[in-house]
Amino acid sequence: MFDSIAIVGATGAVGRLIRQLLEERDFPYKKITFLASARSAGSTITFKGEEHTVVELKPEVFDDIDLAIGSTPDDTAEQFVPWAVERNCVVIDESGFWRMDPKVPLVVPEVNPEAVRDHQGIISSPNCSTTQMVLAMKPLHEAGKITRVIVSTYQATSGAGVKGQSDLIEGSKSFLAGDDYKYEAFAHPIAFNLIPQIGSHKEQGYTSEEMKMVYETQKIFGDDSIKVCPTCVRAPVSNCHSESILVETEKKITAEQARELFAATPGIKVIDDLDTSSYPMPKDCEGSDDTFIGRIREDLSCDNGIAFWCVSDNLRKGAATNAVQIAELLVREAATV
Amino acid sequence: MFDSIAIVGATGAVGRLIRQLLEERDFPYKKITFLASARSAGSTITFKGEEHTVVELKPEVFDDIDLAIGSTPDDTAEQFVPWAVERNCVVIDESGFWRMDPKVPLVVPEVNPEAVRDHQGIISSPNCSTTQMVLAMKPLHEAGKITRVIVSTYQATSGAGVKGQSDLIEGSKSFLAGDDYKYEAFAHPIAFNLIPQIGSHKEQGYTSEEMKMVYETQKIFGDDSIKVCPTCVRAPVSNCHSESILVETEKKITAEQARELFAATPGIKVIDDLDTSSYPMPKDCEGSDDTFIGRIREDLSCDNGIAFWCVSDNLRKGAATNAVQIAELLVREAATV
Repeated sequence: MFDSIAIVGATGAVGRLIRQLLEERDFPYKKITFLASARSAGSTITFKGEEHTVVELKPEVFDDIDLAIGSTPDDTAEQFVPWAVERNCVVIDESGFWRMDPKVPLVVPEVNPEAVRDHQGIISSPNCSTTQMVLAMKPLHEAGKITRVIVSTYQATSGAGVKGQSDLIEGSKSFLAGDDYKYEAFAHPIAFNLIPQIGSHKEQGYTSEEMKMVYETQKIFGDDSIKVCPTCVRAPVSNCHSESILVETEKKITAEQARELFAATPGIKVIDDLDTSSYPMPKDCEGSDDTFIGRIREDLSCDNGIAFWCVSDNLRKGAATNAVQIAELLVREAATV
Repeated sequence: MFDSIAIVGATGAVGRLIRQLLEERDFPYKKITFLASARSAGSTITFKGEEHTVVELKPEVFDDIDLAIGSTPDDTAEQFVPWAVERNCVVIDESGFWRMDPKVPLVVPEVNPEAVRDHQGIISSPNCSTTQMVLAMKPLHEAGKITRVIVSTYQATSGAGVKGQSDLIEGSKSFLAGDDYKYEAFAHPIAFNLIPQIGSHKEQGYTSEEMKMVYETQKIFGDDSIKVCPTCVRAPVSNCHSESILVETEKKITAEQARELFAATPGIKVIDDLDTSSYPMPKDCEGSDDTFIGRIREDLSCDNGIAFWCVSDNLRKGAATNAVQIAELLVREAATV
């Protein structure tokens, strides 16, 4: 176990969930520190019934910390992670900054737990849209070797933070009242609309969010031969990302086999009965740490394809839960050494 | 031209648009009759400044009508279309009932205008989700022969009629106020949610809406070798269907070529500049008869793939506009005989 742990970005939406998960799952530690920017430092957080004062994120604070879980913007992570690593503090980082660094394992514990062993102080947690997809891919890849993935996303506004949420909720209220609303998080109104862009233009007409799904997937499976064609779309949904996924495999997998493979995978729950209109929907998946799969069927357009619908709470498995699971994995690994 | 024309289902949402389009486009006729069920018969409609009384849909009314454009439920179309055809009235039918009948041409005028020539009294207009997709496919198919289409839809509630609209609007108001709302058109709440089912379970885990996209596409192109893998999803958007489409072609088409091909196709407008966050969105496409395409890029997962985003007003090009365009095509064909 780690004696002294910290949450960096403890006052943000994901930071709050990390706190909640550490409490719920009784994560072991002797001392816990809550770190945030100067703006939030000094405020208090109640954790396991005790009041804690939020400490300002500075290099020296890591002198006394063994494990930090960070949920911050990329530029904050770029700055604070080296402070921690230099002081022998292991960092589990939610940001996008370190993910593609060759020295940094990118981990989803159900998919590539072995990758944590090689860490050099930093372990990254993938982007939300990648995490639920690779978890769903894992059993199919083991059974039939995935060669190609075509994915279209329906992503919730919570992925764009507090302002994304208010753009949806306040924007919807204004729209329904016939009033104007000034959108802050998005380039366009999101209420009753769809925005087929998440992130900036990265390369070849694909966005940064889309290229994360390509590169992170290849890194997590350690296999650059897995081809991914992503389309990332922001939808007027508050929380939980949905994905329409088609995978092609070398070896044929039937829909029935896929259903059994998904159902046997820890972290996946299958809800799949079209006849009773049963399938995962964002409204039902919020608050769960699982990834939900339904609409499982064989591709009508190629021999070895499986199509399905995948929904997960992007703030949980897509962020906080995965980070805490990585921390738990490190604790187990340390115990077995 | 046709001397005496009629609109069947004249009081519905699509019927209203058909009336508006006939006015706007100055469709030629000598006499016009507005037909509807007994419930709506007797009400009045103002058309080109004149009041018309809505007439009840009965077999004998077609004695005096040369061309009828029908927008009714499937069971109504099953019943009334033979009444008309027996009386030598040509019917352009929006319903799903006659589309797959081998004697009935299924027509999108920009795609397969030649098909109208073989009609035997009935011409069908495709399902909304098919129409915008085949229009987008047309130039790519001509340039490179399409072998496969993978499509995920983001469909508006207007496709489910007046009750679909109130489920979205009133459901959203109730959700925002924290009140309960009884959904009528959908099996689940649609406000701030996604429903990955449109239509009933048809075959192999696909819905009726999805299988329409498969079979109608093959029929329109007269090519059963075009494979389609569809996922149809209802989104909390009021009007205009969006589709994330990936096509594979025999012959390579570059993104730049695809952009030029789309731009040169009547009925298609290209909005495509990620750097300025320019792409089609439902909120901008409502009220237009065009089909809008953006996010045009080469597939990262196969050599001959083109991915794009396609938005169209499902009540217009997806229904009323296409039917009126078929009628105009018949008028032109009659003039050239």
